[in-house]
Amino acid sequence: MQITILTETELRQCVRLDQAALDAVADAFTRLANGQAMMPPIMRVEVPENNGEVDIKSAYLPGLDSFAVKMSSGFFNNAKLGLPSLGGMMILLSAKIGFPEALLLDNGYLTDIRTGAAGAVAARHLARPNIDTVGVIGAGAQARYQVRALALVRRFSRLLVYSQTPERVEQYAAGMRQALGVAVEPQASAEAVVRGSDLLITTTPAKSPLVQADWLHPGLHITAMGSDAEEKQELQAEVLDRADIVVCDRKSQAFRLGELHHARAAGLLAEDDPKVIELGDITAGRRPGRQNDQAITIADLTGTGAQDTAIALLAFRQAQAAGFGTQIEA
Amino acid sequence: MQITILTETELRQCVRLDQAALDAVADAFTRLANGQAMMPPIMRVEVPENNGEVDIKSAYLPGLDSFAVKMSSGFFNNAKLGLPSLGGMMILLSAKIGFPEALLLDNGYLTDIRTGAAGAVAARHLARPNIDTVGVIGAGAQARYQVRALALVRRFSRLLVYSQTPERVEQYAAGMRQALGVAVEPQASAEAVVRGSDLLITTTPAKSPLVQADWLHPGLHITAMGSDAEEKQELQAEVLDRADIVVCDRKSQAFRLGELHHARAAGLLAEDDPKVIELGDITAGRRPGRQNDQAITIADLTGTGAQDTAIALLAFRQAQAAGFGTQIEA
Repeated sequence: MQITILTETELRQCVRLDQAALDAVADAFTRLANGQAMMPPIMRVEVPENNGEVDIKSAYLPGLDSFAVKMSSGFFNNAKLGLPSLGGMMILLSAKIGFPEALLLDNGYLTDIRTGAAGAVAARHLARPNIDTVGVIGAGAQARYQVRALALVRRFSRLLVYSQTPERVEQYAAGMRQALGVAVEPQASAEAVVRGSDLLITTTPAKSPLVQADWLHPGLHITAMGSDAEEKQELQAEVLDRADIVVCDRKSQAFRLGELHHARAAGLLAEDDPKVIELGDITAGRRPGRQNDQAITIADLTGTGAQDTAIALLAFRQAQAAGFGTQIEA
Repeated sequence: MQITILTETELRQCVRLDQAALDAVADAFTRLANGQAMMPPIMRVEVPENNGEVDIKSAYLPGLDSFAVKMSSGFFNNAKLGLPSLGGMMILLSAKIGFPEALLLDNGYLTDIRTGAAGAVAARHLARPNIDTVGVIGAGAQARYQVRALALVRRFSRLLVYSQTPERVEQYAAGMRQALGVAVEPQASAEAVVRGSDLLITTTPAKSPLVQADWLHPGLHITAMGSDAEEKQELQAEVLDRADIVVCDRKSQAFRLGELHHARAAGLLAEDDPKVIELGDITAGRRPGRQNDQAITIADLTGTGAQDTAIALLAFRQAQAAGFGTQIEA
């Protein structure tokens, strides 16, 4: 048996934030919602001495030949050592025989891609067809990936940005102007971004809400992708109460780790509320997305093993087609 | 950053079932029982279409520089394809910075070693110092590893063996005679093995009890390592009731997946029963093992991520010392 080792450099050359990545991630949500998928709860290993943690995600999606096991690390003392805090890698296993097929040493790149892609898949179904102004709260890596992915499914001419670490905003604005050719306008408050946008993306690790329900307006779509842990929250619970549709990647996970967690804790949304649906029910065509220009829609994305399986398989196939990788006889 | 890739061939040359492996595993149990270890519940991904499953285990043990994430696969249609059903690999991650350090493509070899080693650590503390006859039920890989590991901590001259697949017994007997130089005597029943042994090892995937309480006798130690899933059981629940001490690798796991699960379900043993203790409490010196020659003792081993971390780290260090491995710039 052979295993293929792919490095970040190789993976960046053969996987991009493009339509193929969006299609792969949308397909994963469809397979997840169609049942028979096997996606266990996230496994977390904490290393408190070093302010670190590793999250392990996986999902087997029926019909796909392989599935991924992903390890994402966050070691928050690394900055003192001049090293990146976040890391990650994936193993691709054969769904036929269980043997390892590929080791993807992506250092979190594939997670960035599949996370951005999920936001775009949500926006494709939930944002108004014609938007002009996009708002983003946060100015880190996902503020870039989410907005770049969105540009694959919606045209827009203005980007408003607010960050609680203002020193990052200028570089962010310059980068996005160049990448997308849109006007980028830093704002002085989250409120200004929310009030001024047709579509809002929140991409922060906030532990208290940044977005208030009073700021919402008809037609707004919000993709909140920051919260992926019990203690994180970007949206006031009342924001979800005010929405017409709340779409999540996986109910069991979003009600534990996402914005839905706090809405349920506040007694505002139950797990069986008919307005809460999974993204895969929309990509599968069983449920509609946005139905009119007045609706307020929310996507609460926590990040799933299904996306990891989708992007790992895409990466492996594209790497094979390009002849990348080191073969090890195992 | 560099990651070291080690193949099964290399790992078999630098890790053996020896005192170093036993010491590493005993140390892992001690660290686990001393608190502050982080060992999440086992993650299981099922692939029902192909009669397959992957179990993912991990544990961070304070004081160790690295920790492992292990994937064990069982794909039970593989035999039809002429492939082994069981597989496995480990990733070693830095506990300082979270980055991957090594990929151990051991195909389950390191799991065999650490599982055998745990049985020997248990026997060191629980078996009578002087034994003559060892019994084993099962004739597969662990029937070999457990008995070979036991020989590192106890001298014995006879080995009784019974297997429900008798065609495997002859080869097993010949192999063990050669490996250990002891008399190996196949038996016609599990009962004959239990009644005739000073120390009993059960190593089967049985789903109904093979060992009855009526067959027990004073001074017997039993290591039951077969049950690692809800539906598996090798010992009648009354066997645990009859024992003076029941030692397990991890209470939370053994009461869910091990023999203790069935004893609790039968109302015979509660999780707070003082006779149920973790192996690490003994290796740490906080609790005694066997206290007299008449006691009946049981070790209920389900297999822990702590053992995986211990053996992976030992493997990596010994491979580095021997200059083994392929370096990949990640």
